[in-house]
Amino acid sequence: MGDVESAMIKTNRLQRYCEIKNRYKEAIIVNPIMTGGLIPKETWEKLVEEKWLSVGYSICFDCIEGQSSLVSKPPVRDFLSEVAEFLGGDIAYHTFGCRAAQFAIMRTISNYIRERGAKDHTNIVLADSLCHYTTAITAEMVGLRLAETPHSGYPEYKISAEEFHRKIEEIKSETGKLPGLVAVTHVEPYHGNMNPVKEIGKIAEEYGIPYLVNGAYTAGIIHLNMKSLHADFLTASAHKSMASLAPLGFLVTSREWAKRVFEESKVKTKLSERLFKNKVPNLFGCSIGGIPLISAMYSFLHVVKRVYGWEEELEKTRWFIREVEKMDGVHLIGEDPHNHHLLHFETPIFWEISKHHRRKGFFLAEEMIKRGIVGLQRGLSRHIKLSLYGLERDQIEKVRDAFFEIAEKYVKKFNLDYSVP
Amino acid sequence: MGDVESAMIKTNRLQRYCEIKNRYKEAIIVNPIMTGGLIPKETWEKLVEEKWLSVGYSICFDCIEGQSSLVSKPPVRDFLSEVAEFLGGDIAYHTFGCRAAQFAIMRTISNYIRERGAKDHTNIVLADSLCHYTTAITAEMVGLRLAETPHSGYPEYKISAEEFHRKIEEIKSETGKLPGLVAVTHVEPYHGNMNPVKEIGKIAEEYGIPYLVNGAYTAGIIHLNMKSLHADFLTASAHKSMASLAPLGFLVTSREWAKRVFEESKVKTKLSERLFKNKVPNLFGCSIGGIPLISAMYSFLHVVKRVYGWEEELEKTRWFIREVEKMDGVHLIGEDPHNHHLLHFETPIFWEISKHHRRKGFFLAEEMIKRGIVGLQRGLSRHIKLSLYGLERDQIEKVRDAFFEIAEKYVKKFNLDYSVP
Repeated sequence: MGDVESAMIKTNRLQRYCEIKNRYKEAIIVNPIMTGGLIPKETWEKLVEEKWLSVGYSICFDCIEGQSSLVSKPPVRDFLSEVAEFLGGDIAYHTFGCRAAQFAIMRTISNYIRERGAKDHTNIVLADSLCHYTTAITAEMVGLRLAETPHSGYPEYKISAEEFHRKIEEIKSETGKLPGLVAVTHVEPYHGNMNPVKEIGKIAEEYGIPYLVNGAYTAGIIHLNMKSLHADFLTASAHKSMASLAPLGFLVTSREWAKRVFEESKVKTKLSERLFKNKVPNLFGCSIGGIPLISAMYSFLHVVKRVYGWEEELEKTRWFIREVEKMDGVHLIGEDPHNHHLLHFETPIFWEISKHHRRKGFFLAEEMIKRGIVGLQRGLSRHIKLSLYGLERDQIEKVRDAFFEIAEKYVKKFNLDYSVP
Repeated sequence: MGDVESAMIKTNRLQRYCEIKNRYKEAIIVNPIMTGGLIPKETWEKLVEEKWLSVGYSICFDCIEGQSSLVSKPPVRDFLSEVAEFLGGDIAYHTFGCRAAQFAIMRTISNYIRERGAKDHTNIVLADSLCHYTTAITAEMVGLRLAETPHSGYPEYKISAEEFHRKIEEIKSETGKLPGLVAVTHVEPYHGNMNPVKEIGKIAEEYGIPYLVNGAYTAGIIHLNMKSLHADFLTASAHKSMASLAPLGFLVTSREWAKRVFEESKVKTKLSERLFKNKVPNLFGCSIGGIPLISAMYSFLHVVKRVYGWEEELEKTRWFIREVEKMDGVHLIGEDPHNHHLLHFETPIFWEISKHHRRKGFFLAEEMIKRGIVGLQRGLSRHIKLSLYGLERDQIEKVRDAFFEIAEKYVKKFNLDYSVP
């Protein structure tokens, strides 16, 4: 085969990537990892209007110091101060995501322990047993061992502050030292439970253990003040809860810890004698920012305002819970009354249907998609997780009605012993 | 001050972030870190048309396995295979940028050395002394020491393969071991020199040292085949050289090394007994992807095609060099004839002007911006770096004319002893 012919075949094959469709561009999104990251129309209109999509390194035009967090045009530096204030900290830096923020913190703690010769603290992160997987993975990445406190189990899965107290004592008696870090998921990703972060913060403070609150599901949703939680670090996910494009997160901390976490590179290359001023190793030198950071700036006022409207959102969520629980056997898992938009239901009625349906557990997500609603995990029918955050009342009703319709359709079809509202 | 009043003041203050302007939306971009990352019109039109800007986690709709690189709708998994093939490797994963790709590789090497008890290899990365700062920073991050080979100095700053041979022998005789990794910048960021990556690859292969080629400035610009360079790893920057939004990079490797670099999490949490299937610690679990990854898919055919047109681009670049060198004393630093679009000139004429100008060295970038050309580092006039990559001939002429005009204007004004074409 000639070069030209081979190139043509390749060109034809690659054409498909130019034609990728967004299958869900008109759908109502109910995926709990997505709803806090829906981009306001004003934001994406601005991104287009100002042609921020025309180049990759879009915030680097006027970078003088070689560090995107210090850029003043557009006002990244000021924006980061606002983010810090919004979340009750002194200093905020943007990161490649909440996971990269956790990494920077844990790497700092790991180095801190090593440098101090592990005098008072040992190589352990103490976390809630419902922490996000990234907390476990980042601990693994920096060589910290993960210890967990138990939850209360079915059906509420509650985390208690008292268990942190107990576990710290246990670690202390086993190792003679304190954990290097207490890391708690503000709202956990399995049931949307709001953990007692303030109470745990008091305990961490009393022991003198650095304390990280992972606000991936709350910063940008619920009013959150790091200092009033006695936290040393707060991590946020901009694409999860701050109406931003991915990937982007924030690391917020105190002035004191900032000196360590955002410490500049200390390397001087031996031969070329280069120093890397303003480059922060914990952030890979510079976190770049790009279009996600610009989207976060455009969305910020929207995010600050929506936090004030949280009670109304919660009321809509609770209304939805009561509605959906009208289906025979369906009930919420996790704390009730619920305090977050992430909902986890047990749905025996859909589980029963899945046993008769040729698409098995996939029928549910597929039936919802047919009705213009996307975001249920494909394949799951016994349990479902969803979020109505940010939806209008009529859209929420549409979601409820879709569940009712699907249940009714198949209860009839398969002649099942379940009642439907 | 009441709550409402305070909220209103804040709202007014934050309004500025909603109104951020792109000062350069109509400008010709000549910043060498940006020109390979200019987004084709077709790509950003598709991003808008398909509403990919409407949610943060935009590629996660049909994620089944909890790993963005395995998503089949949109076809991320297939796309990554194409990227691997395009760059001559077996396996490619997307990352948060070229820096995150280097991090994953160096972390793998660092663990590899530790696990094997550092039998044959020691904790050293041997790199060229003109490597990008991220190579030094990522080495620092994972605790590898950076050793460098010298360059030939002014005016060509060439890196030679022979020096790698010499330095490996030196390390061997000092430590009794080989470096853990040889890392070479394919085209270096200071002068745009193309390093002898193939020759160095042969040497690394002969010694049995893992070999990384950093293609941040070349993958997506110049035809590049990892295997023919004898490389074990290739890192690419999608926002720097693959016409993509930031932040995004690729890590390409062999099937053999992929097993280590992309190894899944091995942690099983003790209490909650959770395993994190499909989560890759070297990639923070999952590299998310988001809008930059979608932009890379839309731009891919364009990128593959433009690599075929590289000779023509290079011809335009060389023409520009000859033109600009018509200014008295101006000459290219780095290899000549030049083989890349990144250009570094010594510009004594502008340096002289800066001594008389009230804006000092800032006059040059500012005068260029007035003429609709952005991308010279603000403050620099003695040396300048720029790139004409992807520009049309008339735009390149416009850039040349701008330099000539500025030179002429101030040579006259300050009555300087320089001739201008």
